[in-house]
Amino acid sequence: MAKVNIGDKLSLVDGFWAPKVIAEMNDYQFKLAKMKGDFVWHNHVDTDEVFIVVKGSMCIEMKHETISLNEGEMYVVPKGIMHKPYAAEECHVLLVEPRGVVNTGDAEGQLTAENDVWV
Amino acid sequence: MAKVNIGDKLSLVDGFWAPKVIAEMNDYQFKLAKMKGDFVWHNHVDTDEVFIVVKGSMCIEMKHETISLNEGEMYVVPKGIMHKPYAAEECHVLLVEPRGVVNTGDAEGQLTAENDVWV
Repeated sequence: MAKVNIGDKLSLVDGFWAPKVIAEMNDYQFKLAKMKGDFVWHNHVDTDEVFIVVKGSMCIEMKHETISLNEGEMYVVPKGIMHKPYAAEECHVLLVEPRGVVNTGDAEGQLTAENDVWV
Repeated sequence: MAKVNIGDKLSLVDGFWAPKVIAEMNDYQFKLAKMKGDFVWHNHVDTDEVFIVVKGSMCIEMKHETISLNEGEMYVVPKGIMHKPYAAEECHVLLVEPRGVVNTGDAEGQLTAENDVWV
């Protein structure tokens, strides 16, 4: 494989809440997503999910706390924990999770993105 | 868990070539390492290994090519591929790999770091 320039790949990501795959490690994927506004409450029953903020700021709301993340900060949402990402302004995030994870988890709907799309 | 500020964690990493764990996702770990000079040729027979350069520049020498990585770039070393990291100047790297992976892989020696040490 070639090396991946995260900034270059971000320029290829269209729209919000539609993660695009940029690399695979074993059966895990690294995905870039642009976020703005409210996502939906959902959870991933089988896996943790990593958020690393590459640019901007966002929040991850959970039932008992809200985590605020700025550029250079990361958080691991534990598997099975209901969460709702939110970004007041456009925010760019590197996600790490197993291949096959759908962005809306158990809450399929309008914001469910096509899976396994690479940039 | 709390959120992780990658810059803050880097300030707690002492020495070179001694990765420190900052987060876990399922059975995978995120580790920070400071690199300078030559590492040893080695491979990880059971797993891919991800390098994400947080600050500085480094190279990953392999038998048939050398990958040069700058800040904001990543590379996935495929499992079983012999590689030798090198950094002319101090470089800070986020590694992602399964829990239990030893930094020198199959080439245990002076640069083998204690495993599973958190900062």
